Amino acid sequence: MLLVGWNKRVQRGYPGPGWKNTTQQIIMSMLNIDLSFRSHTCGELRPADVGEEVTLCGWVQYLRQDLFVIMRDFSGLAQILIPQDEDKMNLKTALCDLPPESVIRVKGTVRLRPDGQENKMPTGEIEVLAESVEILNVCRKLPFEIKDFVKKSESLRMQYRYLDLRSSQMQYNLRLRSQLVMKMREYLCNVHGFVDVETPTLFKRTPGGAKEFVVPSREPGRFYSLPQSPQQFKQLLMVAGIDRYFQLARCYRDEGSKPDRQPEFTQVDIEMSFVDQAGIRGLIEGLVQYSWPVEKDPVSTPFPCITYEKAMKDYGVDKPDTRFAMKLMDISETFHNTEIEFLKDALNQPGGCIQAICIPDGAKHLKGKDHESLNFHAPDFHYFLPQRPLLGKLRLQCAELLEDSGVAVRDPSAFHFLWVVDFPLFLPKEEDPDQLESAHHPFTAPLPEDAHLLYSLPHKVRGQHYDLVLNGCEIGGGSIRIHKASDQQHVLETILKEDPSLLSHLLEALDSGAPPHGGIALGLDRFLSIIVGAPSIRDVIAFPKSFRGHDLMSHAPDFVSEDELKSYHIAVNWPYIKAHIC
Amino acid sequence: MLLVGWNKRVQRGYPGPGWKNTTQQIIMSMLNIDLSFRSHTCGELRPADVGEEVTLCGWVQYLRQDLFVIMRDFSGLAQILIPQDEDKMNLKTALCDLPPESVIRVKGTVRLRPDGQENKMPTGEIEVLAESVEILNVCRKLPFEIKDFVKKSESLRMQYRYLDLRSSQMQYNLRLRSQLVMKMREYLCNVHGFVDVETPTLFKRTPGGAKEFVVPSREPGRFYSLPQSPQQFKQLLMVAGIDRYFQLARCYRDEGSKPDRQPEFTQVDIEMSFVDQAGIRGLIEGLVQYSWPVEKDPVSTPFPCITYEKAMKDYGVDKPDTRFAMKLMDISETFHNTEIEFLKDALNQPGGCIQAICIPDGAKHLKGKDHESLNFHAPDFHYFLPQRPLLGKLRLQCAELLEDSGVAVRDPSAFHFLWVVDFPLFLPKEEDPDQLESAHHPFTAPLPEDAHLLYSLPHKVRGQHYDLVLNGCEIGGGSIRIHKASDQQHVLETILKEDPSLLSHLLEALDSGAPPHGGIALGLDRFLSIIVGAPSIRDVIAFPKSFRGHDLMSHAPDFVSEDELKSYHIAVNWPYIKAHIC
Repeated sequence: MLLVGWNKRVQRGYPGPGWKNTTQQIIMSMLNIDLSFRSHTCGELRPADVGEEVTLCGWVQYLRQDLFVIMRDFSGLAQILIPQDEDKMNLKTALCDLPPESVIRVKGTVRLRPDGQENKMPTGEIEVLAESVEILNVCRKLPFEIKDFVKKSESLRMQYRYLDLRSSQMQYNLRLRSQLVMKMREYLCNVHGFVDVETPTLFKRTPGGAKEFVVPSREPGRFYSLPQSPQQFKQLLMVAGIDRYFQLARCYRDEGSKPDRQPEFTQVDIEMSFVDQAGIRGLIEGLVQYSWPVEKDPVSTPFPCITYEKAMKDYGVDKPDTRFAMKLMDISETFHNTEIEFLKDALNQPGGCIQAICIPDGAKHLKGKDHESLNFHAPDFHYFLPQRPLLGKLRLQCAELLEDSGVAVRDPSAFHFLWVVDFPLFLPKEEDPDQLESAHHPFTAPLPEDAHLLYSLPHKVRGQHYDLVLNGCEIGGGSIRIHKASDQQHVLETILKEDPSLLSHLLEALDSGAPPHGGIALGLDRFLSIIVGAPSIRDVIAFPKSFRGHDLMSHAPDFVSEDELKSYHIAVNWPYIKAHIC
Repeated sequence: MLLVGWNKRVQRGYPGPGWKNTTQQIIMSMLNIDLSFRSHTCGELRPADVGEEVTLCGWVQYLRQDLFVIMRDFSGLAQILIPQDEDKMNLKTALCDLPPESVIRVKGTVRLRPDGQENKMPTGEIEVLAESVEILNVCRKLPFEIKDFVKKSESLRMQYRYLDLRSSQMQYNLRLRSQLVMKMREYLCNVHGFVDVETPTLFKRTPGGAKEFVVPSREPGRFYSLPQSPQQFKQLLMVAGIDRYFQLARCYRDEGSKPDRQPEFTQVDIEMSFVDQAGIRGLIEGLVQYSWPVEKDPVSTPFPCITYEKAMKDYGVDKPDTRFAMKLMDISETFHNTEIEFLKDALNQPGGCIQAICIPDGAKHLKGKDHESLNFHAPDFHYFLPQRPLLGKLRLQCAELLEDSGVAVRDPSAFHFLWVVDFPLFLPKEEDPDQLESAHHPFTAPLPEDAHLLYSLPHKVRGQHYDLVLNGCEIGGGSIRIHKASDQQHVLETILKEDPSLLSHLLEALDSGAPPHGGIALGLDRFLSIIVGAPSIRDVIAFPKSFRGHDLMSHAPDFVSEDELKSYHIAVNWPYIKAHIC
């Protein structure tokens, strides 16, 4: 078993991934309370403990030669030597019959392993000579073995999540999550005086909020909804004079079965008064630096910052992966006098241009089938692409193809943070391009230098919005908010043509002495999955739902009887062919 | 304005209520990032700052004599001297017209107040001579003034919660909550190696779980539910080898409109492997001690511990308020040979006894109308009470009556913690006394010495359950759990006559190498409300719901159109008389 990231700081009850934690060092001396049955954890024993009488609790990993029990707890493995004495035969019999993953308590003495029997495990120099063993629970035959090299299907992992979580990788992921969040809290609360405020998750439905789960109340026809974020509450807290708010907020989004989305997820939600963009960016850079796992290379700050315009120009996307170059290049000039018909056509179109990606040694590494594959993804690829986003996708696909053929394009251990700023405040609506909609949300303030355009040329206004991008993934976004009721009303009513009465409590609040304020929300699950290199956010969530939003262990969501729905005054509209009778 | 609990540690961004926080002291030196527009907070200025050029941001508390602006932020008040120079008349005019609660930024210089003009405010020795003032937002006429002595109705406070939260008491409550929770996390995570794990809130409905909100999914007839606690998940995490779990868990309970309950609330949820009752109790005593506000008298440990039986005998209740004596006394012996008919009758009943409460100087303090009031609450009071719980209630009522008449019975600044243990594991069902139901929940393990009775005399089994009581309120409860599948199955199927297949995933988990484990959950809202002496848990929750479960600010829960419910395959069953058309 490989224990990822455990280090010497693993103590009786101490988490594995270590941080430079002054508090921890100071208060370790306070740790005199004996909470557990054990005297030590399995993974902490070392030659310095030789001669100690110890009590260990844990799981039988496996038996070896009827001589050894390899015993596991969260901190690692220990080798237990089964006494071979005649008078302890019953102990030997009991242990040798014990199925793996049974739970035992062992009392014994630490001793050095005989010469030549050491191994490279952290506890590889010692073993524990058992004096007594108590079987605390016998394990049945499991659906899969708890061994890192045993491949399990995703659905089997989910169905038996409590077994899947015993793997060293999942143990590491959950413990890293806990530690990272703790460091974030220390930074926000202790260093910068933020106030951790819990906001409701039973709230009012946003009209047209198609992605909001509804929760029927006991009053006929009235529903709560589970909010997608605490946006309104965080702004109200600024109006309330809380000054600096944060929360690890559970958020809800009903997106059906989009890949790698979860119906509930967690965001690090932050809001501050009397702050500008630079203040929020500085805060977040410090937050990442402070909470960053020590076993990774340190993060340097400030993070690079580019405008939305430049991101689109250079990378064809607003969340560029800056771990590699291969920028988009405008080569229109080269073809200024071209006779090639389709290039000429392109240049003659309004705003027409010719763009290219220069792939280093591309001719060498990309073969015929690769061209086909790129072509498949972008039918117009051959020589002509009208839009930058397609080129942005091609850039990423080229990187993948190169990596598949063994070329090192992106350093898998590199973490490239990037701020993207100066987004347009409004975009034309897809279904009606004469109408504008918010590029992010209607509470974002305009850039000060564009503020005057809000009343004349709103489509030209850039917003005080900022996205935090890590390795090509958006891991956070925020903005300086509109803090004047009149501006907010103008945006809602005149520009977005929305009914401002639906947000009357927010408008009233802005009119009641709202300070200038701004904030950000970081997607914790995504952030963690990138840090640990997990293929899915499900690997950093203890009990995630499947693609289809199911809990494969408990079978949620499940049928509820008509009777049980009565107090909520709702009935199920069964489709014509009733597939199930409840 | 009275600022409760602010102290010198209030810094630029520092929370008010201070703790002995080593981390905070160490990292204060790291605080060199200028995040805010301000250079100082209003409340931190002292004579040592005289001569400093400062920038303050905050709210206009009031104007005085057209000379001074009293300015407020979260940290306190500062007096701003408006320059009276001719060339700054426009500044004076702007300020003097400014409604209270408008938001301003002031630049100026700190100076000592002239002799005789000092006051007892923390900043009462200095003032700031304004050089420039920027009006950041003008405040409309508010529904109530932000002054502590202004009484507001509960519904007005809830409707304008963002104004209500500006009061010094609510600022204190929310900041205390944040700090207390932070200390709890430090203790659990950094001192004792607990892992903070988030568990799902979209889960499977417990059959018959009448208090669980349902959440329709996009699959016809299938619902998630919002769990009342993470009970199953915390036990599964123990099976998963997490060893020590904690979470500040949002829980949901649909109790209609019970007084001082909230549909969503927060519990400090804890679970440990390889632990016994004493271990959990020691952990929690340390937790309370570590997180206890420094401005209160320290808490001494261990907490006293009494059995359920003794609590009922002495106090007539399983959560006794031990701040005062007036214990129940059995005086049957005295009336052994009584000729008084009704006493004789009482003693002749099976298990009959005569109990009394001795009220010190009761005859002096309790008047005729008090007797009537006690009589009102307990019609049988005059001389005869068949049940202990009624006497328990009478004991509390007598305490209240005595306090109303000016007798000091309970010290309002005293905090009496108490463990109550050895509860019965099962109780007869109210509707069918031949049937047993769990006194707490079906996962509680029996006391080891009673374990053998589980299969013979289950009604005699005492459980390894413990309640934490503070000043007569239950603020927490927990137990050592059943960790063997066979015992759990026996309890569910044979004793409780429940269908064990509904918990098959838990039974399977217990059979897959479940360690011995136990835990506890503390009701954070209740605990905090007692610490701050609030009359309701609503005073320690940022955005609580009303008695009827309404958010009076946003009007949640609200009507949702038929169309918006379609994707959830539900329709509203309107009552016959349609009060509202949606």
